[in-house]
Amino acid sequence: MSNRVRTVVAGATGYSGRDLIGLLLNHPHLDLIGAFASHSEEVTPLSAIHPQLTGLTKLDCRPFDEAAIARLAPNLIFLATPNEFSHEVVPALLESGATVVDLSGAFRLREAALYPRFYGFEHKRPDLLQKAVYGLTEFVREKLRDAKLIANPGCYPTSILVPMIPLHKAGLVADGQPIICDSKSGVTGAGKAPNATTHFVEVSESLKAYNIFGHRHTPEIAQGLEVKNESRLLIFTPHLLPINRGILSTIYVRLKDNVNRQDILRVWRSTFESEPFVRIFADSQLPEIKFVANTPYCDIGCAVDEETGQAIVVSAIDNLLKGAASQALQNANVALGFDERAGMK
Amino acid sequence: MSNRVRTVVAGATGYSGRDLIGLLLNHPHLDLIGAFASHSEEVTPLSAIHPQLTGLTKLDCRPFDEAAIARLAPNLIFLATPNEFSHEVVPALLESGATVVDLSGAFRLREAALYPRFYGFEHKRPDLLQKAVYGLTEFVREKLRDAKLIANPGCYPTSILVPMIPLHKAGLVADGQPIICDSKSGVTGAGKAPNATTHFVEVSESLKAYNIFGHRHTPEIAQGLEVKNESRLLIFTPHLLPINRGILSTIYVRLKDNVNRQDILRVWRSTFESEPFVRIFADSQLPEIKFVANTPYCDIGCAVDEETGQAIVVSAIDNLLKGAASQALQNANVALGFDERAGMK
Amino acid sequence: MSNRVRTVVAGATGYSGRDLIGLLLNHPHLDLIGAFASHSEEVTPLSAIHPQLTGLTKLDCRPFDEAAIARLAPNLIFLATPNEFSHEVVPALLESGATVVDLSGAFRLREAALYPRFYGFEHKRPDLLQKAVYGLTEFVREKLRDAKLIANPGCYPTSILVPMIPLHKAGLVADGQPIICDSKSGVTGAGKAPNATTHFVEVSESLKAYNIFGHRHTPEIAQGLEVKNESRLLIFTPHLLPINRGILSTIYVRLKDNVNRQDILRVWRSTFESEPFVRIFADSQLPEIKFVANTPYCDIGCAVDEETGQAIVVSAIDNLLKGAASQALQNANVALGFDERAGMK
Amino acid sequence: MSNRVRTVVAGATGYSGRDLIGLLLNHPHLDLIGAFASHSEEVTPLSAIHPQLTGLTKLDCRPFDEAAIARLAPNLIFLATPNEFSHEVVPALLESGATVVDLSGAFRLREAALYPRFYGFEHKRPDLLQKAVYGLTEFVREKLRDAKLIANPGCYPTSILVPMIPLHKAGLVADGQPIICDSKSGVTGAGKAPNATTHFVEVSESLKAYNIFGHRHTPEIAQGLEVKNESRLLIFTPHLLPINRGILSTIYVRLKDNVNRQDILRVWRSTFESEPFVRIFADSQLPEIKFVANTPYCDIGCAVDEETGQAIVVSAIDNLLKGAASQALQNANVALGFDERAGMK
Repeated sequence: MSNRVRTVVAGATGYSGRDLIGLLLNHPHLDLIGAFASHSEEVTPLSAIHPQLTGLTKLDCRPFDEAAIARLAPNLIFLATPNEFSHEVVPALLESGATVVDLSGAFRLREAALYPRFYGFEHKRPDLLQKAVYGLTEFVREKLRDAKLIANPGCYPTSILVPMIPLHKAGLVADGQPIICDSKSGVTGAGKAPNATTHFVEVSESLKAYNIFGHRHTPEIAQGLEVKNESRLLIFTPHLLPINRGILSTIYVRLKDNVNRQDILRVWRSTFESEPFVRIFADSQLPEIKFVANTPYCDIGCAVDEETGQAIVVSAIDNLLKGAASQALQNANVALGFDERAGMK
Repeated sequence: MSNRVRTVVAGATGYSGRDLIGLLLNHPHLDLIGAFASHSEEVTPLSAIHPQLTGLTKLDCRPFDEAAIARLAPNLIFLATPNEFSHEVVPALLESGATVVDLSGAFRLREAALYPRFYGFEHKRPDLLQKAVYGLTEFVREKLRDAKLIANPGCYPTSILVPMIPLHKAGLVADGQPIICDSKSGVTGAGKAPNATTHFVEVSESLKAYNIFGHRHTPEIAQGLEVKNESRLLIFTPHLLPINRGILSTIYVRLKDNVNRQDILRVWRSTFESEPFVRIFADSQLPEIKFVANTPYCDIGCAVDEETGQAIVVSAIDNLLKGAASQALQNANVALGFDERAGMK
Repeated sequence: MSNRVRTVVAGATGYSGRDLIGLLLNHPHLDLIGAFASHSEEVTPLSAIHPQLTGLTKLDCRPFDEAAIARLAPNLIFLATPNEFSHEVVPALLESGATVVDLSGAFRLREAALYPRFYGFEHKRPDLLQKAVYGLTEFVREKLRDAKLIANPGCYPTSILVPMIPLHKAGLVADGQPIICDSKSGVTGAGKAPNATTHFVEVSESLKAYNIFGHRHTPEIAQGLEVKNESRLLIFTPHLLPINRGILSTIYVRLKDNVNRQDILRVWRSTFESEPFVRIFADSQLPEIKFVANTPYCDIGCAVDEETGQAIVVSAIDNLLKGAASQALQNANVALGFDERAGMK
Repeated sequence: MSNRVRTVVAGATGYSGRDLIGLLLNHPHLDLIGAFASHSEEVTPLSAIHPQLTGLTKLDCRPFDEAAIARLAPNLIFLATPNEFSHEVVPALLESGATVVDLSGAFRLREAALYPRFYGFEHKRPDLLQKAVYGLTEFVREKLRDAKLIANPGCYPTSILVPMIPLHKAGLVADGQPIICDSKSGVTGAGKAPNATTHFVEVSESLKAYNIFGHRHTPEIAQGLEVKNESRLLIFTPHLLPINRGILSTIYVRLKDNVNRQDILRVWRSTFESEPFVRIFADSQLPEIKFVANTPYCDIGCAVDEETGQAIVVSAIDNLLKGAASQALQNANVALGFDERAGMK
């Protein structure tokens, strides 16, 4: 019992929180000892908020309360709370000595100056922006070990950065050409708050693009690809799909001369060969959302027109898992020295 | 031009209002001259509220205002407003001399005493409950001519009463046996207000029963079938389907001895033979929601186990059309002496 | 290694087979050593048939071949094959000494005479119909231990029998009154073969009842409830829902005098108290499909009109899991002496 | 009566055929006198094939037979038949003197040499490819008058060419830069034939890209934009959406220096000002599929980053209507001298 990790989840009422709790309840080393809601004054059994959890836990979800969390003496805190809320509470939570994994965007961008425009608030802790580890697990394992603040990546950025970072690092991508990311997400990505955007009738039997040129994940993707975006070298267009969960990103990029599909596959293989949660689709079958729904995988594939070096990269993740809860758990596992797959089969 | 009917819609922001406006804009005799919202303080183009209507109308939707409506001197007023709102405003609107078609439940039940329990308010105008014509068009055409207040039937009751009233009137149904109505509706039936019930993720890939034993359409169905429901001879269970529009009702009923499927079909044929909007499925194909979606039809069919007299009646309507907007227009057409199909092809 | 169970799946190309393989690949004691297709002549990697399994197994799916299976010396064989196919091959497979869990209907009905009418073939092994254990796990654990042939229950029957058998056994249900089961299933229940019924456009935005009075699960439910169905005391109507997975059954039943909701809950609690995979919804929240999708649970709840004793029981399962693969695994775990939950978290 | 147009539909069993028949049955001048199936030997009532049409027509659908069609002496023939079938039968049908509107791709490409690669057959009538009018109605009205063979545009090309042709003609688009068309279509676009691609479970809760770099609509779009595609200046990626009907195209294009959003809107307005079926979304609201589903409109809108001249054009159509049946009717109306909107309200 001495090795067990006392774990708290704040933001337990949303979809990411729910899926994270589902994973924690099966984890061999983490004990879920507290669940908190960022915006509720009531004490409610988790199984009443998420009847999916009926019979799996008797824990209550309580109003967020730093003192109450401190009294639980947690070793690990997950925040699946709104951006501004995380921004407010993380500093105090860090003082408790617990490892904090924040699933919001509050600590993802290194440049504080981007927050007012993309997040609508002034960032008060630029120092923490430098210290936080941007937790795209596959690329930052060393930094994650013993990290105290992990900024869990956004769902869209995860789907784009996993396949694209290795291609950039390997120098396969033509310079000065735009990278166009046409991404499509299920509705859980829009959160659990009911509004006109998430109403069944407004989503079903339809599709829309939204936040063109202005989505807050754009600077996060640009940061991950080390693109200065003044010249719109990175274009990101999200769309709302009439499905519950999953993201498909179709990414258009020009390759350098004489780079072909085999080069891409070779780079991916050398990067991801022993990765448990990245799957390379090397044959004619491309990734589809249904192959990753309810799984912790990022699936990646590509087509290349070899005459012209035009590449189309296709990636798929479950936005609530690799795009949120399972990547958070992956990060926590690495930070705490467990098998990275613990709690995910 | 003198024959044209000056028409107003209140409750123009909801789904029934939208579909009604769509029909009115194609109507040969009705001129839509005003659109009002029951709960909004803003003046907004209808095409901004319902981009479906882009290019079809330049009319604004305005805050509900009895005086403004009176100044328009309408001949015909449709109310697609909430129950209690209709209850409040109908008396004054009637004084203008216009024909009022109320799509809410405010004037559907003849017994005022049922309102507190099923609608949550005390009914102040029991006299109007007696005067209002319950507009199940196929059964009340004579009363509709020159009616001033038409209570447009509920969506679920329409799907059940159309097939069942003729069977009851013809005496085919066994006495004292329960009629079990298992109904399934698309989400437009739950209205446009965003809430936990209508959130895409809560509806999609799921199904639920709701308001068991307590749905407000239960007394409306019982009234239509002339069933005293103290002994639960009428059982009605609605379910929420992950689709936009349409209702399927599966109705379980015992027939009297020696009554068979042909008897049912014979009664239906004699009742509905020349009806434009009731279609009898007399072969093995039963009604399905997709056959009626976006149409003004009520499709009806049945299966009978002739050994035992157990019948299963299946009916389908589009809840926004035959269950709301197109039946309202059907009623208005009859009340004003037009071809009943006017505006519906 | 000596304790590990050599496990084979036949019928690996369908949805039940796929989900079963997914469970087996996580099972602590069972080793999947062979996968076979009932109707294919090709050798294909499982991960090409089901890209969901990419990275999880390198096993091929091969054409069904009794000799090849025998050479694998399996201890456990799952058949997720068509009814008639299972009927043909089970006798020989039993001779190998392996435990056989058949997910088809070939050995579910004790009365051989029902097969021609409901399954379209003459049953050649009425002796095996007597020996087969009908594997509704919660009710037959003793018989399952050391069973050699387990007939895994149908999806619809599971959803109906789990809540209803205890009520019947406890004598709560009125005699001579019909039990009306209005069930709704996702499309995986219709199998993976493409046809007009499973075409996306024919299912989406629709709902239909099918096989009224004639579905082959009717005699299976009647057998489970020990109802002689000559007088249609059991009425079962399946509907096809526009969702992937899950069944909701709405069951209408009259209770005996003075039986109330608490009596039902009491019986359920005493039956299922320590069951890992049955969850009782005792508050106002009723089961919904989304609470059980992708889980091995059967959720049950009820509403009772205590004036009249009319009860409405609502149950939900995932048709591919508790209605097929996970119940098959539950049965195998019991038969082989493992923790019943092994492989299911 | 002498003015009425004797109209025949071949390919009456598919989704385009069904919707076309629905429109024809409401048309003021066209009489549907014959319906034929390209691949069926049976005579079946149209209302049995498409129960949606119950009560609307008593016409039978018959096996395709040139002689039978000739005996009907039609003035107008719609072909909603497969590409190769249309290619075979059009020459003979033209000899009858009737106007032929072919909804297939058999006569859309002017270059016969493209057919083997993109359609899988050698084109035998390059002369007809020159004579056929490519019926993107808004751009070819003069040619349509008295046209005898109209090649009705593909669904994807319609969604892309309507907004893009005016921008190209007006010289707003930068030279030598790729035009990237990321298109998403509902499943009716994949046809009515059941196969693994159209199975509900394979489509629902998923999204996939398909036919990357190879879709047969690519040369059709390139032809419409007068792009030589050796250098992949046109990139078209279709995706399969889990919805019944509708296409959304997201089109990425670089504008020439100093061209801004107002320039695009100005060109669109001058082109489409009096068009009945093109709607410009000039405010912040962009087109969405739900606004055009079940309508004959093409909705167009755009966003432009004025710093860089990067434009994103978004368009939406109903693939079965503006992408097939209603555009075919629009074309026939123009060819025969009727109001272009006849039969479409």
